Amino acid sequence: MSTTEFESLDKCLESHLPEEELKEVKRILYGKETKKLELPSSAVDAATDRDFELKGFQFDAAQEQLRPPRKVRVGLVQHHIVLPTDAPVMEQVNAMHSRIGEMVEVAAMCGVNIICFQETWTMPFAFCTREKEPWLEFSESAENGHTTRFCQEVRFPFLDLLLLIDIFMHLLGGPHMQNESLPTLLSLTQSTYYMEGDTGHTVFQTHFGKIAVNICYGRHHPLNWFMYSMNGAEIIFNPSATVGTLSEPMWPIEARNAAIANHCFTCAINRVGTEHFKSEFTSGDGQKAHHDFGHFYGSSYVAAPDGSRTPGLSRTRDGLLVVEMDLNLNRQISDRWNFKMTGRYSEYAEELTEAVRPDFKPKIVK
Amino acid sequence: MSTTEFESLDKCLESHLPEEELKEVKRILYGKETKKLELPSSAVDAATDRDFELKGFQFDAAQEQLRPPRKVRVGLVQHHIVLPTDAPVMEQVNAMHSRIGEMVEVAAMCGVNIICFQETWTMPFAFCTREKEPWLEFSESAENGHTTRFCQEVRFPFLDLLLLIDIFMHLLGGPHMQNESLPTLLSLTQSTYYMEGDTGHTVFQTHFGKIAVNICYGRHHPLNWFMYSMNGAEIIFNPSATVGTLSEPMWPIEARNAAIANHCFTCAINRVGTEHFKSEFTSGDGQKAHHDFGHFYGSSYVAAPDGSRTPGLSRTRDGLLVVEMDLNLNRQISDRWNFKMTGRYSEYAEELTEAVRPDFKPKIVK
Repeated sequence: MSTTEFESLDKCLESHLPEEELKEVKRILYGKETKKLELPSSAVDAATDRDFELKGFQFDAAQEQLRPPRKVRVGLVQHHIVLPTDAPVMEQVNAMHSRIGEMVEVAAMCGVNIICFQETWTMPFAFCTREKEPWLEFSESAENGHTTRFCQEVRFPFLDLLLLIDIFMHLLGGPHMQNESLPTLLSLTQSTYYMEGDTGHTVFQTHFGKIAVNICYGRHHPLNWFMYSMNGAEIIFNPSATVGTLSEPMWPIEARNAAIANHCFTCAINRVGTEHFKSEFTSGDGQKAHHDFGHFYGSSYVAAPDGSRTPGLSRTRDGLLVVEMDLNLNRQISDRWNFKMTGRYSEYAEELTEAVRPDFKPKIVK
Repeated sequence: MSTTEFESLDKCLESHLPEEELKEVKRILYGKETKKLELPSSAVDAATDRDFELKGFQFDAAQEQLRPPRKVRVGLVQHHIVLPTDAPVMEQVNAMHSRIGEMVEVAAMCGVNIICFQETWTMPFAFCTREKEPWLEFSESAENGHTTRFCQEVRFPFLDLLLLIDIFMHLLGGPHMQNESLPTLLSLTQSTYYMEGDTGHTVFQTHFGKIAVNICYGRHHPLNWFMYSMNGAEIIFNPSATVGTLSEPMWPIEARNAAIANHCFTCAINRVGTEHFKSEFTSGDGQKAHHDFGHFYGSSYVAAPDGSRTPGLSRTRDGLLVVEMDLNLNRQISDRWNFKMTGRYSEYAEELTEAVRPDFKPKIVK
């Protein structure tokens, strides 16, 4: 199936539209043109050798008199699983570590400061099966698990690289999925595997800026992005795992709307490929039992507060998206658009507090 | 200038992309294909005679056993001003009434139940000038103003038509702009002309469904859309006036994100054309004084809760977009995606109540 998957929206537009019209189409679809980022040829060669897409873009901010630029390079990684889903667990994890290792190496060559992997990157996205075993064996200790050690080691040679780790949300965000109740839809029965968290919308102050992680389904709730922003987030990562038939038209909208509405950068990462499972399963949609959840369409991208965005990585290949952003743009756009200044948050707080009361009466005029 | 304006994203894609690829591009950009709505040929002919674009689409919902379909037809109107901005005020208003009259007539032929005009449709978008006169003379009494009477008269022959009137927000939403503090950006100095309202997020229960109006700049605040939805809105209209250099890449994102996030239909309406003013004005952006605010790019569209949307009206022509929607789709998508069920609103209410306190400490981990 994945051989017939449509490869990339951007490639398609670029190969068919005349130059002048392409420019207008891209302006309307993507906003102000995102500059290409010059990447070292050693990195480009390594990506070709290792068979993954490598793209680089940069978002500039205006020069100011008093504040120096605050340039950060982030890396977004999307990838297939490496081994079949019925290979021994440890072999699957090791194969994924090794694949990620060679991609992180290229990210380091590109001067990446913060890297984010896709959701549950050390395992197949097996929640659709509703089986407990062997999938629960992929769960690891955040303190001294195999993957934690791998991340420490892979980080070591690249001192400037902050690894942002999304392994079952263990390391940064506490042991539970965050900030929304868990959905059970189609083949997704996540509460079979983990429960919602209660740690609020924590933001992490790093050397490179204030970052937050809004995991997967959290992207559908504008209030999640908003609360991270209220806590000061300058870059919000959204590691996801989602398939074409379900969510693809929403994908370019949600993270980008969050960047616009909250005057921040957002990084949307989706895994790629179709993952086959030995046991067949149904999806509660009347269809016959099947062996895969669908095609994860990749298309990872970064959106900026001015409404612009990078093109996406492909829908079919492993990829590393390197994006340099000047965080001063957040404040500059905020100064221009004033959403934070014009948002009547006290009123929303009151209205929402009313709305969650059991005796809430909607404000309806007949 | 408007003669060289790019006419339409959809037309451009349709004229250059091969059929199979166009299908994939449209799926990714617009979601599930929106069916064309068959419109009476008398309406099509009248639109051609009267020189405006007429497009029709329909959003279906699945058939259910117990709930009958709840089909509604909405009409979105975008148009140029008719007379030069220095014509006598009454002549300008009359010319606009007459233009709207002939468009409403076609809407009625198409069986439209609810029609929404663009923001401040009876006047040029003169706020950029910062002049008080003659613009304040366009303000009218909601009870017995010239435009109120016009709307009553134009409605009369089409008894089934609910006119949704956006004249300086007078008629439905109270005398003040709603729900956000007013922005002063570039040439826009709206608080020179009106102040923010304090009537909350009122929803109107009509014969055709529960509707709300989120005016212009309110579209930038996800919490505005959200509060209308919490009060039960099934269709949220967003009459706007915005120009290309400022907001165009945000335009397809914001109302559509609101439809997705809130399981409702949203209708985004923008005026069209470039409006020239006799007195020159500056825009606080270091540029020379000029006589127009920029090109209003039209592109009105309707977005559905399943992430799909209609193509837009053109960027350059007057237009009427007729959309039939089955409001059952809202509940069906809500049942599928469960955003309302999984949103942890009590937690957001608490966090936001905290966040608006003067002594708020953002939740930051170092």
